[in-house]
Order: sequence, then C-alpha cells, then structure tokens
Amino acid sequence: MSDENKTVYERSLDLHRQYAGKLETVAKFPIEWRETLSLAYSPGVAEPCREIARDPEKAYEYTLKSSTVAVISDGTAVLGLGDIGPLASLPVMEGKCVLFREFGGVNAFPIVIDTKNPDEFVETVKRIAGSFGGINLEDISAPRCFEIERRLKAELDIPVMHDDQHGTAIVVLAGLINALKITGRDPQTLRVVVNGLGAAGTAAINLLRSYGISDIVACDSRGIVSLDREDLNPEKRGIAESTNPRKLSGTLTDALEWADCFIGVSVAWALTPDMVRSMASDPIVFALANPTPEILPEDAKAAGVRIMATGRSDYPNQINNVLAFPGIFRGALSARKREITDEMKLAAAQAIASLVEHPTPDEIIPDPFDRRVPEIVAERIRSL
Amino acid sequence: MSDENKTVYERSLDLHRQYAGKLETVAKFPIEWRETLSLAYSPGVAEPCREIARDPEKAYEYTLKSSTVAVISDGTAVLGLGDIGPLASLPVMEGKCVLFREFGGVNAFPIVIDTKNPDEFVETVKRIAGSFGGINLEDISAPRCFEIERRLKAELDIPVMHDDQHGTAIVVLAGLINALKITGRDPQTLRVVVNGLGAAGTAAINLLRSYGISDIVACDSRGIVSLDREDLNPEKRGIAESTNPRKLSGTLTDALEWADCFIGVSVAWALTPDMVRSMASDPIVFALANPTPEILPEDAKAAGVRIMATGRSDYPNQINNVLAFPGIFRGALSARKREITDEMKLAAAQAIASLVEHPTPDEIIPDPFDRRVPEIVAERIRSL
Repeated sequence: MSDENKTVYERSLDLHRQYAGKLETVAKFPIEWRETLSLAYSPGVAEPCREIARDPEKAYEYTLKSSTVAVISDGTAVLGLGDIGPLASLPVMEGKCVLFREFGGVNAFPIVIDTKNPDEFVETVKRIAGSFGGINLEDISAPRCFEIERRLKAELDIPVMHDDQHGTAIVVLAGLINALKITGRDPQTLRVVVNGLGAAGTAAINLLRSYGISDIVACDSRGIVSLDREDLNPEKRGIAESTNPRKLSGTLTDALEWADCFIGVSVAWALTPDMVRSMASDPIVFALANPTPEILPEDAKAAGVRIMATGRSDYPNQINNVLAFPGIFRGALSARKREITDEMKLAAAQAIASLVEHPTPDEIIPDPFDRRVPEIVAERIRSL
Repeated sequence: MSDENKTVYERSLDLHRQYAGKLETVAKFPIEWRETLSLAYSPGVAEPCREIARDPEKAYEYTLKSSTVAVISDGTAVLGLGDIGPLASLPVMEGKCVLFREFGGVNAFPIVIDTKNPDEFVETVKRIAGSFGGINLEDISAPRCFEIERRLKAELDIPVMHDDQHGTAIVVLAGLINALKITGRDPQTLRVVVNGLGAAGTAAINLLRSYGISDIVACDSRGIVSLDREDLNPEKRGIAESTNPRKLSGTLTDALEWADCFIGVSVAWALTPDMVRSMASDPIVFALANPTPEILPEDAKAAGVRIMATGRSDYPNQINNVLAFPGIFRGALSARKREITDEMKLAAAQAIASLVEHPTPDEIIPDPFDRRVPEIVAERIRSL
C-alpha cells in the first residue's frame, strides 16, 4: 500500500514505529572531556547541590526545573477514546511534550500516573514536582479533574494548568472575541449556549463569565442545567447558580431559541439545522466535538450560520489548544509565575485574538503555525 | 577572576548557570507541517493509543518507553554531601541523565521524590513507571535503599538498578579481576577486606561472592561485622552470616593483617600506612571514598601497595560507575530485559576488564571515555 492510500491513522502508526517514540532527552553541551565531566558531574556538581540546599530558589538557576513542564495524565479521558488507561495515553502525552518544545521552546516530559484515585494522583504529583517548573494536566476525566487541579494549584508553588479546561477555554474566547467584532455584538448582551459540561465546557463558561458575558445557558446530555434539577453534582450545581439568568429549563432545543452563539464541547451531531434556524440571525457556532463536530460546517452554513469554528484542521477556524499552552507556560516559566491566573487566561485570549488584524468569518483565529502566537502570549503572561 | 584560578566548584557553578540546567527534551522530528502535527498529535495519535490499549507491549514500539530510563532519588545520600533533600539532589540526577545519553545513547529523565518513607517512595515509583523502560535508583541512603530496590525489582516488570550499589560493585570487580591477573592471585584463596557497609560496600560483597571470592571480611565504623556482635541491623546480620569464614572479630586493623586486598567505600583517611604494612605482600588497595580517599595513592605506594585505585580522575585507575550503567541499561532496554540479574552484573564486570588487554598496576580499568566500554557491556547484557 502506498503512503497516499493510507489513512491518517495508518500513517501515524508508521511514524510512531519509525521513531519508536517522539521525544528524546539531550545534553545541552557535549561531555567529551574529563574537565566537562568533572563540572557536569562529580566532583563539581556538588557545588550547585550545596547552593540549592541553602536556597531552594537556586534550583531555577542551576537545573532543568527552570524550563521544564510535566505533562501529566491518568489516561481517563483521552482524546475521543475515553478511559484507555495511563500507558495507552502515553503517545498523546509524548506528543504534547513535542508541541511544548516545538511551539513554545519549553522542555516537557510525559508522566502517566497509574491510579484513578484523586487523592493518590495529587499526592504522586506533589512528590515528584521537584523536577518541574510547571504542571500541565491532560486528559483527566470530569469531574475528577476539577478537584485534582484545584488541590494541586493550592498545594504546589509552581503553575498548574489542566489544559483540556483552560487551554480550550482560552482559544474559544479568542475566537469569540473576533466573532463578536465581525457581527457587531456586545459581550454584555450576548446570549451563549454551552453544550457539554466536561472539562472544556465548564472552564469555557467560567472564562466567558470573567470576560463579561453574563447570559450563558449551560446544557448537559439531559438538557439545561437549571436550579430546579435534582440530578446535579456539586460542579454542575455551581454552574446552575452562576448561569441561566433568564431561568430557562428544558432541552438544548429550548435553550437555543434566539441564542446568538452555540459552543459545543459535546458529541457528534448534537446540533441540528432546525436548532440553528431557531437561533438569532447571524449565529455563531463553535462545534468542537472531535473528530466529528456537533454539526458539519456545510450544514451549519446552509442553515444560516454566519461564523463557524471546529476543532478540525480541514476546515477554517480551528480551535486548537496549541495556540495557548506553549506560550502560557513559556511566559509563566520565564517570569517565574507561581500560578496561572484568570487575568492571565483573559490576557492570553485577547493576545491571540489580536493577531488577526482584520477578522472575517473564515478567519477569526490565527493559524496554529503562526509563530507570533506563542511569542505574544508569553509576553502578555510575563507582563502580568 | 580568570577561569584558570577558579576551583572546580566555581567553574561547575558557572557552567550550570550558563546553561540553566544540563538536559533538554527534543522532538525526534520537526513539527513544521500540518500533516506532521496530525500524525504526531491529534487525530492520528489516537491509533497508537488504541494499539497500546489492546496490547500494552506495543508501548515499546510506539513511545519513548522503549529508550528512556528514570533516574530517581530522594536525595538522602548525595555524593559526599549526605541527606540534602530531593530538590538539592537534582543537579546530580540531571548530570546522571546527561551521562546516560552521552555515554550510552539512552534517554533519561531525573525524578526527585519528596518523601523519606520507603513505602511511599516505592508506591510513587510504581505509579509513574509507565513512561519508563528502566529505573536507575540513585543516592538513596542505606539501609533504606536495599528494601526499596528489592521491592521495586519484585513489583515492577522493567529493569530496576540502584547504581550506587551495583554500578560501583561492577566496576570494583572489573578492576579487581585485572589486579588479580597482575599479582597472580586466585579469587578462591584471596583475602579481601571491605570497609564501609553502605550501598556500595554491601553490593560489592555480594558481587565478589558471586565471582567466587569466599574470604571476605566486612567492616563498618565499629569494626569487623561478626556474628558475635549484637548491634547489627538485618542487612549487616546477613553480611555477617555470609562472610568472615575465619571468624575474626575486632577492628579494621585486626581484619587487615595478612589481607591481600582492601576495598574502602568508607571515609577519608580510614586506612593508615601502618595498616597497609600489616597486609600481605603486593597488596591491592581500592580507596574509593570521595573526594578524599581512605589513603592517598602516594602514601599507599610508599607503604608498599602494588596496585591502587581511587574514585578520582586525577589518579590512575579511576573506579567510575560511568563504565557500567550506560551500557547495562542500553543492553537491557534494547533486549527488553525485565531485570538486571547477578549474571548480567558479572558479565558486565568481565567485559569491562577484558578491554584492558595488558593490565599494569597503573591500568587495571579502561578510561571512562573509552567508547568501546558501553558497546561491549550492552552487547554482553543483550546476549544473556
């Protein structure tokens, strides 16, 4: 079979097999001489050790801690594959590390943790955090991911970010900022429906609220998340309390009537053309389910959608986390930030949006390969 | 101050500061195109994930697990510095990773673990072992290191080796093999005194016994480890049971009378010229305390020592672990060994010794930069 006839999956397998993994560890300088050996290792290395023992902050001066992020997962919510376990998630984590380095100039190493117990997960990360300047949590199922991130942020003194939550939320907001510009809408009067309350949906709601969007209706697979529902876990109860100002109840279909914007982080085909037609005119649709979106762009456009984004690279307006996490950690590491704040996330979204000078319906977000993106994001994070 | 006037410690600090650490993580291929991104990451990466979920062994085919060792410490017994804690040990662990890569072509990443509880240490390593094809334990204090290594070897299905124990023991045996050749001695009648029963001393005793040396007298800071002592911990009791066939008791001085060989992994100045003069003729002295040996080579020679080795690079016959661990893990990883056996350790020592074709008192061991060493060691490990 020639390469052209192979699917992206077959070609990916070939690539992984050819290189036997994607990441390697390399010395920053060659150890070719006795002198270098005696400085990089025994006996000279005793001196940076002594300095760090005296002042732990010096670890940032003398070790890889200054420039290295851990990409950590338990493999419970991997891509569209679900709970495939830590070992099977390793190709994703290793790939993420490669993106950290290639897009952000940040060193990264994948750690897959073999436990589903949040306490054990948190405890393990805390015990091994010494080697790292930051923690990127990845592909951890909701609602466990919320508690895990909250505790690690509180208990560690290095930046911790669950990228499936905040990376996605940041890029969604960046795209939305430009979509509002094009359609002349105001965040304060905008009606947004967020469908899907996993990691990404929950974080998107929080970040949109921080941006000043107050009319958000959240939906899960059972419909509108409203205070009259009795099946809500603590996270969803929190969402019910802080959203849905018009006190709607019912289904996603009910939520979408006269809505300006649909943000889907849910499942394939969740949004029908009829639902789209019930929205306000010139609707904005972010259909981010992967690999098959909530509605295909061609169907959405036919039903009247003005601005459409997906998670896919074969359509315009790809909402791709790689626009956010490399620059965020690069900025946070280089300025020695102790956490990633909401202010930083807003600033990152605005910085990403600002790189599209003249937004159009087919260009609300920069290309993932636009090298200015990690630069400007890192710069903004540093400045805060 | 010019560089020449600086000590090795000052120059080491300069080097560490200049590079802000010694190790970086790098992509094995550039991600410059949308196509590569879609193969190395989403959506293509789903396929190696699915394959590993079906068959965990495939992790060796598609991920960095195949070629990556964890260098793990709790910072309790670092170089000559003692218990300086995990963070302060990071420069050593990072340096070790650099040596793994530079000398053995093996990828390695430093993990420092923030606990002194052996159960927690073992539990943490087990939880994060998925990313790694092997575990190199480093600078863990005795006797905790024995239990930790024993349990990890039993409970993990990847090779685990505490290098302070076995790396040192292997290179000691390699040097001793050639020293015996020069002095025409027979392992079966050789009288050896090992002084210092930390990680290295204990492992050296075990490996020398596996090599067929039966007359070993072990000493700690209180003297000969004999069955009549009542202050022995379980490890030392085991040593007392398997050594000291002539049932000596008393001090190191008593042990050394008529001994052929002294192996010191203890403290500076532990061996006096008078003690040397009480040994058999043409004695062999390995004085491995660092940075100051049990006796200086010039003093030892003046007292009649025929063959002398130290841990230092500024004297002949440096007993340097870098002769062993890169090749051992390279061989173990490439042949997918599940453990490092005693047979492999003996074979490694013999392979290292064999590279000195014509041993002389000033050359019983290859140079650390002899690139044939990791090759031949890896080859021997693979063949077993």
